[in-house]
Amino acid sequence: MHGTVGCCHDRLVPRVSQDHLAARRRQILDGSRACFARFGYEGATVRRLEEATGLSRGAIFHHFRDKESLFLALAEDDAHRMAEVVAEQGLVQVMRDLISAPPGREGGEHPADWLGTRLEVSRRLRTDPDFRARWAERSEQLTNATRERLKRQRDAGNLRDDVDVEVLTSFLELVLEGLVSHLAMGLPADDLEPVLDLVEESVRRHRRHG
Amino acid sequence: MHGTVGCCHDRLVPRVSQDHLAARRRQILDGSRACFARFGYEGATVRRLEEATGLSRGAIFHHFRDKESLFLALAEDDAHRMAEVVAEQGLVQVMRDLISAPPGREGGEHPADWLGTRLEVSRRLRTDPDFRARWAERSEQLTNATRERLKRQRDAGNLRDDVDVEVLTSFLELVLEGLVSHLAMGLPADDLEPVLDLVEESVRRHRRHG
Repeated sequence: MHGTVGCCHDRLVPRVSQDHLAARRRQILDGSRACFARFGYEGATVRRLEEATGLSRGAIFHHFRDKESLFLALAEDDAHRMAEVVAEQGLVQVMRDLISAPPGREGGEHPADWLGTRLEVSRRLRTDPDFRARWAERSEQLTNATRERLKRQRDAGNLRDDVDVEVLTSFLELVLEGLVSHLAMGLPADDLEPVLDLVEESVRRHRRHG
Repeated sequence: MHGTVGCCHDRLVPRVSQDHLAARRRQILDGSRACFARFGYEGATVRRLEEATGLSRGAIFHHFRDKESLFLALAEDDAHRMAEVVAEQGLVQVMRDLISAPPGREGGEHPADWLGTRLEVSRRLRTDPDFRARWAERSEQLTNATRERLKRQRDAGNLRDDVDVEVLTSFLELVLEGLVSHLAMGLPADDLEPVLDLVEESVRRHRRHG
């Protein structure tokens, strides 16, 4: 055994190159996110991915094995960012971000720029059983983040304690899925703020217990 | 003005033929419902519609102008049947029917046999702006049935009175959309019964008001 051999070959790459690789990877993810959101998975051709990222197909597929791997990495990246918002502010805040940022609005990076990816994930889960299997193992982190957040809220006395945390988690995920679908259908979201208030109140400690 | 000229030419058709027309129309709707659910809108070719209904294309398109008109009539028919369940038992019962009947299960007519149509409506609303415009005018009846049911429940003292009926209606519709999407993605529904209990309880009169 040689002490400097790690499981990741990045360990053997100089720091400056590592930073470069990470920046390049980020550039590809951010460019292709907009491309997948605009054209859908099938419509996001290699040529369009080149245009959207400003990189050649050679450069793109140096970092990601194929389009499918790129999309899965993107979906995983977005799920990770959503999970971070969930951990700090809860899943209802994720939903509030969604309706405060109608899809298609311009203006640079936005907390809800993952909507396009999420819609494509939902669509492919409906239509592509192979994708369903590949996504299953990656989809747990949002559920886990929601569950952990709810447990902390329960410990802090903010959550109702007459309904199991698993049920509350499923409830919030179901509403999120409905909201994503609602937005995907182009339905107006400007009247949903009080609906999300109701959702939030439904998982909170009831005043009759207070 | 002639007293016997009605706005509908069916008034001039003998009763037995009217019954025949209605039965034929029903035959087409029920056969094509299964066909659209199985193959999707695009995949439901005229040949497949002929097989599914047991009728020739000439007979089918004698009753419906084209495939689009047939699909819209079907979606409207299903929305009407859903609205009837809503009027009598509420939208949460519609959702309970959905999770007690996993899509694809065999066994003849079922209260949730409209799931396939509903999924296709949702998908086409996402992908087809023209369809969106045509469907908008027809989609009101489920919302109206839900709103009217909630108003009656409020008058009967069963509904919470601190949240507007419009908000409660939107809330229930959002959960339904989430449930439809959940099932469409092939996710398990066997643990959603307590989630629907929570949804139902969230619109009911709170005990603290009782």
